[in-house]
Amino acid sequence: MTFDTFETPALILDTNRLRANAARMLDHCAAHGVTLRPHLKTAKSVDVARIATGGRLDTVTVSTLQEAEHFARAGFDDILYAVGITPNKFPRLRRIAEETGRTIRLTLDSVEMARALRASGLENPVLIELDCGEHRGGLPVDTPMLLEIAEALGPLCTGVMTHAGHSYATDDLTDVARTAGVETETARAAAQKLREAGFDAPVISIGSTPTVLHAPDLTGVTEVRAGIYLFCDLSQFGRNICRLEDIALTVLSTVIGHNRAAGVLTIDAGALAMSKDIGANTYLPEAKYGWLCNPETMTPLDLAIDTVHQEHGTVTVSDPALYDRLPIGSLVRVIPGHACLTAAGGYGGYHVTNGEWWPRIDGWS
Amino acid sequence: MTFDTFETPALILDTNRLRANAARMLDHCAAHGVTLRPHLKTAKSVDVARIATGGRLDTVTVSTLQEAEHFARAGFDDILYAVGITPNKFPRLRRIAEETGRTIRLTLDSVEMARALRASGLENPVLIELDCGEHRGGLPVDTPMLLEIAEALGPLCTGVMTHAGHSYATDDLTDVARTAGVETETARAAAQKLREAGFDAPVISIGSTPTVLHAPDLTGVTEVRAGIYLFCDLSQFGRNICRLEDIALTVLSTVIGHNRAAGVLTIDAGALAMSKDIGANTYLPEAKYGWLCNPETMTPLDLAIDTVHQEHGTVTVSDPALYDRLPIGSLVRVIPGHACLTAAGGYGGYHVTNGEWWPRIDGWS
Repeated sequence: MTFDTFETPALILDTNRLRANAARMLDHCAAHGVTLRPHLKTAKSVDVARIATGGRLDTVTVSTLQEAEHFARAGFDDILYAVGITPNKFPRLRRIAEETGRTIRLTLDSVEMARALRASGLENPVLIELDCGEHRGGLPVDTPMLLEIAEALGPLCTGVMTHAGHSYATDDLTDVARTAGVETETARAAAQKLREAGFDAPVISIGSTPTVLHAPDLTGVTEVRAGIYLFCDLSQFGRNICRLEDIALTVLSTVIGHNRAAGVLTIDAGALAMSKDIGANTYLPEAKYGWLCNPETMTPLDLAIDTVHQEHGTVTVSDPALYDRLPIGSLVRVIPGHACLTAAGGYGGYHVTNGEWWPRIDGWS
Repeated sequence: MTFDTFETPALILDTNRLRANAARMLDHCAAHGVTLRPHLKTAKSVDVARIATGGRLDTVTVSTLQEAEHFARAGFDDILYAVGITPNKFPRLRRIAEETGRTIRLTLDSVEMARALRASGLENPVLIELDCGEHRGGLPVDTPMLLEIAEALGPLCTGVMTHAGHSYATDDLTDVARTAGVETETARAAAQKLREAGFDAPVISIGSTPTVLHAPDLTGVTEVRAGIYLFCDLSQFGRNICRLEDIALTVLSTVIGHNRAAGVLTIDAGALAMSKDIGANTYLPEAKYGWLCNPETMTPLDLAIDTVHQEHGTVTVSDPALYDRLPIGSLVRVIPGHACLTAAGGYGGYHVTNGEWWPRIDGWS
C-alpha cells in the first residue's frame, strides 16, 4: 500500500494485525470455554465487528445507543449497551426495537432504574452491574439492593456484569491476574446470590482486555468483554498487554514544518488527530502523544509527538540530520497512546491496508 | 428552553452569550482599526461564522481544508488556512478553487514549500509564518530565509502572520500584554524587512484571543485572529480572559448512576463528550474535566468531573444529600475545560438555545 496520494491526517488500519489480534482472542476464549462479547466502542465499525466475532454477528458490546442502533441495523444480535440506562434513552430503545426487531441488552445498578424500565413496558433484558473495585458504576456485591433490583426487574433480569477498569493501574501482570480474580469472583458471587434467592441469572459477564487475557480462572464466567485488543496501542504496550508489532492502528501524518531555530519539526497530527490522552505515559513515559514510524516499514524513528495543538503535533529534534531524513512534505505513521480516542478524532473511517475504506459510527445521535 | 426530551450527551450553545462575545470582539477590533479574522476551528459552523464576522462572510481563519472547503461552498471569501501547507494538499486546493472560485489563503515557512507551490501553478496567496516565541511553526524574524521565501513566492506573497500560542502560559495579564507586544513587533519587523527589500506585504496578521484582547498597541497590524472568545471555557476563565458568565458552550449530560459505596456519581459525559484536555487545570486546579451546573439556571453545583472514561464521567460526592438533589436520570450542564476539543467530540452540531440546530464540519475529508 502506498500512501502518497492520501490526504492527511488519516487513520490507517493494518488488516493482518487486526485479524491476528482478533483470532488470538477468539482462540483464548474458546480454550477457556467462554463466549467473547467484543466491545465495539474502540472500532465502531461493522467490518471490524465481523472479524471480531469470527463472522458470528452476535454477542457484542457497545458504549452508545448510536452504536447499538448501527449494529442492530447491520444484523447483529444480542447487543449489550454497557453504560447505565436512564429514562431519557428509552424512546430510542423503543425505536431500535420497532425498526430492527432487536432488543438491546442493558445494564443498571439501581432499584429506581429497574422500576422505571419495567414501568416503561420495554422488554430489554438486563445485566445488573457490580463494582469490583473500579469505583465507577455498579453495586457492592454484599448489598441487599442486588436482590431488590432483581425483584424489580422480574423477567428482565438475565444476570450480572462487572468491569475491572482498574486493571490498567499497573504494568505488573501479577497484579492484573489478582484484579482479574476479584473481578470474576465478584460476578460469580453476585450471580450465586441471585440464583440462591430464586432469580434467573444465566449470564455472568466480566472483562477488560488485561483481565480477560490474564484471569487465572474463568470457571463459572459465561462471557468476557474486551475491545482494545483488536487495535492495541502504547497504553497496552506499556502495560505489557501486547507487543509493539501487534498495534494495528496508526495515524498517517505529513511533516508540515521545520523550525530549526527552535529545534522542532511539526506534523499535521495534533490534539484532534491523536487525542490528548496521555494515559500511556504512566507506564511508558516516553510515549508522549505517540511514536513516529516509517510509513512503509513501521520501523519506529525514535521520535515522539511532544506537544499537541488542535492540528499541530510538535516533535523535538535532537539530531539536525533528521530534517534531511524527514523533509517537509514527507509522511510518517504515528502509533497512538490510546487507540479508542485516536480513532474517534473525527476521521469517519479507516483506510484499511487491504485497500478498502471501512466507515465508523461516531457520536451519539 | 427545556431539555427533558434531549438525548444526552448533547452540545448546548447559548446564543445570547455567543452574540455578546462576538459583538464585544468586533467592537474591540473596530476601536483598534484592525480587521477581525475569526478563527473558525473552534465553532466549525457557518451559523457561528456569520455572527463572528458580523454578517460579512469574509476574512476568516480555518485549521483544516475540510473547513476551508465548507466555508468556501457557503460563500465565504478570503479564507486563511493557518496550518503549514504541503504538496499532498495541493489537489484539494485545486478542487476548492475550481468548484467554488475561491482561492484559500495559505501559510508556509520554507523555501521548499514556496517553490513547490509556485511550481504547482496554484495561485493561492500566501502569508509567511513567523515564530514569535511559541516555537511551533514559523521563522525567526532575523533569518535571511524570509526574503528567500518571498523571492520564491513572487506575486503569491501577501504578507506575514504569527501566532503567540504561548500567551496561554500565564494567568497574569501583564505577561499576556508583554507577549502580545512581542507578537505584534515580530510581525511588523518582518513586514518591514519585506517591504524594504521591495516585496509586497499588505497583510500583517497576528493573534490569539488573549493577545488580541490585551495587546498594548496594534499599530501597523492589519488583522487579528482569535476563535475561542466566541465560546469561552474554563481555560479562558482560569487565565482571566473571560468571565464565567461569558461561557456559551456546555454539554448537557444525564446522571446515570449513584455509587454510594464508593462516594461517586457517574454522568454520561466522559472522555469523548468532554475531551481529555486538562489544560484548564494549570491555572484553575479545580477545573478537572469540567464543572457541573444546574441545566436551567447555569448555577454551578460545586461539582467537577474528576475522572473520565470513554462514555463515563465520575464525580466525587462529599455530601450524600447530593444523591437526592441529583437523582439518577436528572440532567446537568457541564462547562468544558477546553471548548475547541469538547465541541469536536463527535456531536455533529449544536443544540442552540434559540431552538435551532447548527451543524458542525468535523474531520479532514
